[in-house]
Amino acid sequence: MKNCKIIFCPMNKEIEIPVGTPLKKAMDIAELDFDFPCGGRGRCGKCRLQILKGSVPPSDADRDHLDEDEIRAGFRLACTIKVQDDLVVELPLAEAEGHKILVDAAERKMKLKPHLRKLYCEVPPPSLEDQRPDWDRLRSVLAAETSERGYVISHSALQALPGVLREKKFSCTAIISGNEVAGVEAGDTAGRMLGMAFDIGTTTVVGYLMDLLTGKQLGVASAMNPQTKYGADVISRITYVGQEAGGLERLQNVIIEAMNRIIEEAVSNAGYLREDVYAVTVVGNSCMHHLFLGLDPKHIALAPYVPVTGSPQDVEARTLGIEINPAGKVYVLPNIAGFVGADTVGVILATEMDQSSEIRLAIDIGTNGEMVLGTRDRLLACSTAAGPAFEGAQISCGMRGTKGAIDSVQLGEDITYTTIGDGKPKGICGSGLIDAIAVMLAAGIIDHRGRILSGDQLPGTRAERFASRVVEHEGMNSFMLAAAEETVHGRPLFITQRDVRELQLAKGAIASGVEILLEKYGIRPEDVFEVILAGAFGNYLDKHSACAIGLIPSCLEDRVRPVGNAAGTGAKVALVSAAEYRRAAHITGFMEYEELAAYPKFTEIFSKALYFPEEEQRI
Amino acid sequence: MKNCKIIFCPMNKEIEIPVGTPLKKAMDIAELDFDFPCGGRGRCGKCRLQILKGSVPPSDADRDHLDEDEIRAGFRLACTIKVQDDLVVELPLAEAEGHKILVDAAERKMKLKPHLRKLYCEVPPPSLEDQRPDWDRLRSVLAAETSERGYVISHSALQALPGVLREKKFSCTAIISGNEVAGVEAGDTAGRMLGMAFDIGTTTVVGYLMDLLTGKQLGVASAMNPQTKYGADVISRITYVGQEAGGLERLQNVIIEAMNRIIEEAVSNAGYLREDVYAVTVVGNSCMHHLFLGLDPKHIALAPYVPVTGSPQDVEARTLGIEINPAGKVYVLPNIAGFVGADTVGVILATEMDQSSEIRLAIDIGTNGEMVLGTRDRLLACSTAAGPAFEGAQISCGMRGTKGAIDSVQLGEDITYTTIGDGKPKGICGSGLIDAIAVMLAAGIIDHRGRILSGDQLPGTRAERFASRVVEHEGMNSFMLAAAEETVHGRPLFITQRDVRELQLAKGAIASGVEILLEKYGIRPEDVFEVILAGAFGNYLDKHSACAIGLIPSCLEDRVRPVGNAAGTGAKVALVSAAEYRRAAHITGFMEYEELAAYPKFTEIFSKALYFPEEEQRI
Ligand code: FES
Ligand code: FES
Repeated sequence: MKNCKIIFCPMNKEIEIPVGTPLKKAMDIAELDFDFPCGGRGRCGKCRLQILKGSVPPSDADRDHLDEDEIRAGFRLACTIKVQDDLVVELPLAEAEGHKILVDAAERKMKLKPHLRKLYCEVPPPSLEDQRPDWDRLRSVLAAETSERGYVISHSALQALPGVLREKKFSCTAIISGNEVAGVEAGDTAGRMLGMAFDIGTTTVVGYLMDLLTGKQLGVASAMNPQTKYGADVISRITYVGQEAGGLERLQNVIIEAMNRIIEEAVSNAGYLREDVYAVTVVGNSCMHHLFLGLDPKHIALAPYVPVTGSPQDVEARTLGIEINPAGKVYVLPNIAGFVGADTVGVILATEMDQSSEIRLAIDIGTNGEMVLGTRDRLLACSTAAGPAFEGAQISCGMRGTKGAIDSVQLGEDITYTTIGDGKPKGICGSGLIDAIAVMLAAGIIDHRGRILSGDQLPGTRAERFASRVVEHEGMNSFMLAAAEETVHGRPLFITQRDVRELQLAKGAIASGVEILLEKYGIRPEDVFEVILAGAFGNYLDKHSACAIGLIPSCLEDRVRPVGNAAGTGAKVALVSAAEYRRAAHITGFMEYEELAAYPKFTEIFSKALYFPEEEQRI
Repeated sequence: MKNCKIIFCPMNKEIEIPVGTPLKKAMDIAELDFDFPCGGRGRCGKCRLQILKGSVPPSDADRDHLDEDEIRAGFRLACTIKVQDDLVVELPLAEAEGHKILVDAAERKMKLKPHLRKLYCEVPPPSLEDQRPDWDRLRSVLAAETSERGYVISHSALQALPGVLREKKFSCTAIISGNEVAGVEAGDTAGRMLGMAFDIGTTTVVGYLMDLLTGKQLGVASAMNPQTKYGADVISRITYVGQEAGGLERLQNVIIEAMNRIIEEAVSNAGYLREDVYAVTVVGNSCMHHLFLGLDPKHIALAPYVPVTGSPQDVEARTLGIEINPAGKVYVLPNIAGFVGADTVGVILATEMDQSSEIRLAIDIGTNGEMVLGTRDRLLACSTAAGPAFEGAQISCGMRGTKGAIDSVQLGEDITYTTIGDGKPKGICGSGLIDAIAVMLAAGIIDHRGRILSGDQLPGTRAERFASRVVEHEGMNSFMLAAAEETVHGRPLFITQRDVRELQLAKGAIASGVEILLEKYGIRPEDVFEVILAGAFGNYLDKHSACAIGLIPSCLEDRVRPVGNAAGTGAKVALVSAAEYRRAAHITGFMEYEELAAYPKFTEIFSKALYFPEEEQRI
């Protein structure tokens, strides 16, 4: 039997399967995380993808869900395809973009303790001998079954109560928050209670659908943060809010709409309804936190940089417009300071740094680098504006970590690299840039001050063999990482002197933050038991390179542990355990925040941290 | 110096004052409760009235606030008038209608304990040395000043906080409900906190504006209940809700709009803003209670007649659309049963029946008669459908207690009467009707079965002198109370045989309720220490007549105490004292409700109660 070869773009995954195999099965074999919302029955029309090469005759389902132009352009529903030919298939953009959003992480074990309880009640029906009102009737059943005496009922639950009680012969399920009955449902629904944990990033929003009764993750969905079109970074969004009338409401509305779409996507993929979701937790940096709650973020950006709140905030979902069960609530994790947000609290919750007797250092590298150092007895935090260099911005050939980005660079006989999707390179992402600089340092192409030696300085040194790669580009000494003929667009990729300077600023910001925390804590680098790298970037970063360029003290290279999206894990932890959520308040209460700019020796430490480690300091 | 005579309509009050006296002063002397919102400076244009007779040249202020037609029709602003002529003045309708709505009552002494507290706080401003977030900063001030530790803040207060703190140099006033900061205001506003107590009647809505810090009443405003146009009585409104889509929302909306207008009127008359109002209490019968809260009243009217709740309900004002301070809350007093509402709980709160060691009987006579009997050890309640006879409805010449109604009837040489407003009669109101029947009984014109003797049966009896008044009217024996030439409309006023029967049904309903309560309680009428007559009607009712017709046991005539709108007083009590509000829950908890229709001997007792007392039983 003949085999067919299928290449899935943009991740460039290749597999061979026998002719006639359903594409759905092929995607399974290829371990692609692709959704078939209707279960692959050709009904929902949501599993569309594009055939770039190869022949796939359109099915009836294709004709139902796609128009002429789309069919001509090669769009098909994945679930109806039986493979008859070699194919190149392009998966939709959302999948591709989601490719490097880390949705899994070092998960924690904990006791489940949902924020809301469900209690099934069989209420005795009224009669002329027992004319107690509906609510008093339910309340006495609740009081009999629990230790709580002073139950109250929310206005909306009270409105629903008479109808609900009479729908299934006075059996109902009460949804209880503290001493309040927040909702009532007809019959026994006590076995169904979902929640969503959100990590609102400046660029990306991820929502995790969790079963609150088992702690199991049922799905995940993500989207770009639509606030991006009002400002790419935190500061420009704060400026937008300050300058545009209704700006705060607009930014709040777009993020809430995006979250509602994510909820809808996650629940429908998992075969549930949004009414099955009763609790939502939210982490994000301080600005995302404020915009989500509709709090003016102005004072975060102005000295002395104070957020509106540093406490957990519980809000009824309906108040915020979050579309879940009407009894549902939103639990927003607290910020630590203006530039250390609830996302960092999430990292601490996820990693249990606040319960550790060993000294740990957590670093979340992004546009802002947030760092936390300490033990259960003392935790110190700081934040530093690393700039977007690690995200590929302000680097001449920089790009985000998507298809075609150089994501690692190796030094062997020659200097080689790999790209995301394994195709020709288009540019370089943060992890690739750190590798590249580390390799250039190791090869002697840059000195510890960050200067790229010119091509005529290299002969006679160990870097002599790379002399031909060092050229003048844009009036600066530059290192050619990929020649024109190697790249997608036919233009060479350079690391310019200015790129090196940008990276020095970024790594200097992080490194000086680490140094000040250590100094303030009164310990040496080697006293740190573990370095926790949080955030997607930490997973892709080569720890040897990170130490080689001085981002992390070299002596800690073997103690580096990437934990992925620990902020998101923190949101999940706080979702399935009300006790852990309350711990968040405790964490912000005992955390010390160090304002780096106010640190006496800041300038001195920062200017030293701009240098790369001297050769003898490197391993 | 010449005097001028002024007659104020519709209450027909007459006074004489020296020429040149300001009308405002004259109204003061006449003790008219008339409002001058701007203090009488001709600015607000709200003190308009109509000159029916006499000359008042228009002032500049009149020309500013009134148009040509109005001035020609005699409208003037009261505050600008200096009296130069004899005048007949018509006060505006609202005043006239308010005339017999009882807004005062036996007030109670109690400790003030507002539902919400205000606390003035001087918050230390942030600095680079103290970067705590705004809320954490305020919370620690609150924690230092009070014993509460676990303060939380509402979402809306959190949104307002950064702006409020920075408006007056970080001094602010927190509005606190339990452990929640429900609102924040810039500077020191702790001295200002008002509340509104509402009595929602089926026909009339009254709102009392109270100073929560002093317990003083600052004003009162009232309006017709606009639900009347969807149904005059409770049952027709419940039917409307059951039959019309969106009916419940509509009835809820119109009552809330009416309450918002009452709030606006009361606060502006008193020189305040609606934002100065932080708490609202509400009493009403069970149906008014349900419609106000948007609860389906269906099951009140269907056996076994259970209301949705019998507990106090606290709701945020904004949830209900009550327009007061955004931090404000609404406290709704509980019902006892389907037909014994929160208004009766208000009566008990106001009269402290639940704390009395003596046995008291409270009767609230209206379309429904609600009765409560007992002491602090045991309270029994029942309700009976008396029908609208006491309100003048279904009586041939019946009318409400407004201008021109006969409100009392006396037996002397002849049978005489008085009217409201002292003019010619138009009809008869409830208190007049009870008097009339009592007089006819005393005169021997009706027998104890309720039969009006015919004119030819009277000669030879002591009623002989009234024989000419007993005529046939509408085919029935009828008693002519006022001859054609005595009345406003030139038609005679009769008490017909059917009118007597209607009254018998109404009084029989009340009297049998009283008898069943006494029987159930195991006491005789003379064991009752005091009979409390609640409601406006109780104030106008002649207690001798009430006993003479058997509405109240004769032996209790000297123990009758009318307390006016005690339900409204209860709402005020629950407004200024959170402790008293909580007592309401206790009251409904220990109250026993007697469903009269289910009482074994009901028919027997009711049919006996239809009779009037025999002569020897009357005093
Ligand atoms: S999975 Fe639903 S159409 Fe393909
Ligand atoms: S009192 Fe204001 S116009 Fe007369």
